[in-house]
Amino acid sequence: MPHPAFNPLVASLSQPPVPAVLSWAQAYHGQNGPLIDLSQAVPGYPAHPDMLRWLSEAAGSTDYTGYGAIEGESVLREAYVQHVSTLYGATIAADHIHITSGANQAFMCAAMAIAGAGDRLAMTIPFYFNQETTLSMLGVGTVFIECDASRSFLPDTAAVEAALVDGVKALVLVTPNNPTGAVYPAGLLREIFDICRRKGVWLVLDETYRDFLPEGAERPHELLSIPGWEDTLILLYSFSKSFCIPGHRLGAITAGPAVIEQVTKIMDNLQICAPRAAQAALAKAIPTLDDWRRGNREEIMHRTDALKAVMADLPMWRMEAVGAYFAFIRHPFEGVSSAFVAERLAKDAGVVCLPGVYFGPGQEPFLRFAFANADVPTIGTLRERLASFNLPSA
Amino acid sequence: MPHPAFNPLVASLSQPPVPAVLSWAQAYHGQNGPLIDLSQAVPGYPAHPDMLRWLSEAAGSTDYTGYGAIEGESVLREAYVQHVSTLYGATIAADHIHITSGANQAFMCAAMAIAGAGDRLAMTIPFYFNQETTLSMLGVGTVFIECDASRSFLPDTAAVEAALVDGVKALVLVTPNNPTGAVYPAGLLREIFDICRRKGVWLVLDETYRDFLPEGAERPHELLSIPGWEDTLILLYSFSKSFCIPGHRLGAITAGPAVIEQVTKIMDNLQICAPRAAQAALAKAIPTLDDWRRGNREEIMHRTDALKAVMADLPMWRMEAVGAYFAFIRHPFEGVSSAFVAERLAKDAGVVCLPGVYFGPGQEPFLRFAFANADVPTIGTLRERLASFNLPSA
Repeated sequence: MPHPAFNPLVASLSQPPVPAVLSWAQAYHGQNGPLIDLSQAVPGYPAHPDMLRWLSEAAGSTDYTGYGAIEGESVLREAYVQHVSTLYGATIAADHIHITSGANQAFMCAAMAIAGAGDRLAMTIPFYFNQETTLSMLGVGTVFIECDASRSFLPDTAAVEAALVDGVKALVLVTPNNPTGAVYPAGLLREIFDICRRKGVWLVLDETYRDFLPEGAERPHELLSIPGWEDTLILLYSFSKSFCIPGHRLGAITAGPAVIEQVTKIMDNLQICAPRAAQAALAKAIPTLDDWRRGNREEIMHRTDALKAVMADLPMWRMEAVGAYFAFIRHPFEGVSSAFVAERLAKDAGVVCLPGVYFGPGQEPFLRFAFANADVPTIGTLRERLASFNLPSA
Repeated sequence: MPHPAFNPLVASLSQPPVPAVLSWAQAYHGQNGPLIDLSQAVPGYPAHPDMLRWLSEAAGSTDYTGYGAIEGESVLREAYVQHVSTLYGATIAADHIHITSGANQAFMCAAMAIAGAGDRLAMTIPFYFNQETTLSMLGVGTVFIECDASRSFLPDTAAVEAALVDGVKALVLVTPNNPTGAVYPAGLLREIFDICRRKGVWLVLDETYRDFLPEGAERPHELLSIPGWEDTLILLYSFSKSFCIPGHRLGAITAGPAVIEQVTKIMDNLQICAPRAAQAALAKAIPTLDDWRRGNREEIMHRTDALKAVMADLPMWRMEAVGAYFAFIRHPFEGVSSAFVAERLAKDAGVVCLPGVYFGPGQEPFLRFAFANADVPTIGTLRERLASFNLPSA
């Protein structure tokens, strides 16, 4: 009897990385103190009590038990578009917004709207692994633009220009970057936007960590003020980090109405609509919790400073880039696989982070520390943990 | 300047059908009494008060704000696998279950696990439109097995056998069927399972409407008791209908652990995990709300009987099939497009239903009535509405 087969594009994917890393953590027995979990990009503080109350009220109401609008609840699209308009000093409308179940889904919808099997998208290396695996399983090819420490992990515009060859439908950038933390300057984004526009290639900008730029920093970019931006730009966002609600799965796409129309068709097939009750709660939180979000941003800055101080004392562990939630660290064990270093760090030292290899070829020298997950005192304890860490002798 | 393009597989899809039909309804001004909405498959009664309380409690808790297991909350997988085991008299375990954001997503995950662009899946006509468009946008081809009134909209096994040619990776069936309501007998499902197994083709069975079979009816099928079923069978389910919570977006896949492993990789890319709080609430509801669900099933049976009585008085409107949530009705206007009939029915008579054309080629003579949406007195008013309805003269 022939045996039914799986889609080889899916069968050949590795298992999801975060659960694998968390299983290493389970083998740590506390010998050096409590586990320091720098693996997943989650805020290490709880959601606001008002947020929880609004979530509870909406979930208990029959108002949100039925099917909702595919594009998202009107109240949330209105609240979010006002936030985006203010942040970018631009005038956009609710029909520029599609609500999704998180930023991964926003990426998948944007990718599918643009490209099918056999097409190609350009992305930077190191990459956010879920974006690469999403394209792989859809049969969409990738063209890589290498970023390295010598340029603070920012892409060279000449390399961007060279990557956007015929058949490449879009360029995907993540800023602030996952995994490096690199923040793309507004001027660089404008240059890249112009290249994309000239070549007729979509620019997909994943801004999941946008809310964790330093206070008083320049506007992330001015792209939404460019007339006709809708024909080139697609922005992705997650509500998970800023509102501490990843379990409620909400994100958003900001794009021209023609893009939103394509995404609506995809979302209808994919899950009809994002979960509704949390959308209604979020619509209340967006205009209300500004001060709380500002406080969290400051807290993340304190954590950044604490990590910088720790790393300055550890010259063998070089912090090559840092920003928003992430630091990209060159480990001291040249030539050793990053997965082996990360596994030993978790099991022996109780420090859980992601190995560079998950973020693409050439990343073996690195580890990603998702430090937003740990408070300042915990980050302080990293100093002793890393200083005394060594690999077991062979 | 070249203009960035869309994925033609998505650009060529029609707009989602349900919103289009609801827009016809907005043009009805109540001249024949209140609107009768038979468009979408939603239960016309509210969720249980305990369900709403559990939803509210879980959504207000920090226990479910973080990321969760990709496969779903353990408590829900355990509760659901017990329900499935009891229903089918089979012994399966929690690692046979993957929680998704509704049955559409369960279908998309199953389809992607099995097939990529260029592969083909077999499905019956009339089909559930979202399944067909999901495959289209993924570049997966379709082989159709026609079902018609002469066989109560059940497929002929010889036609199934003939459809499963080389390159067809799976057969998709929906029972009770959407749109016809046809309930596939257990014996027919066994015959079809055997054909699929012999040919090495997956059998994907969408059982979204499973809970609305008549009380005391035979078990839907015995397929989960076949040794080695995991190598052939994938079951899909929705919690939306039975628990009246479509807005919370939860469904499930029941399959062998090897299938679940593929689906986990897809779900991680697609949205990391289904929304968590509603999963926790549902885990409490499954073992508790049996009596309430039985009562609802009886209510749907009363609605079925009411519709049968109405249709018996309307010989021009022939009910060709009925079951669970749906009736498939042959309208009296031979040769007229079903979309035109449905549009006039909505705008002039205030009866909203879906035109047959949405369910595939050859379906112009039909309309789908999702009668579960309407209570018995409302269904009674259909008699006069349909009897006095006529198309405007050209």
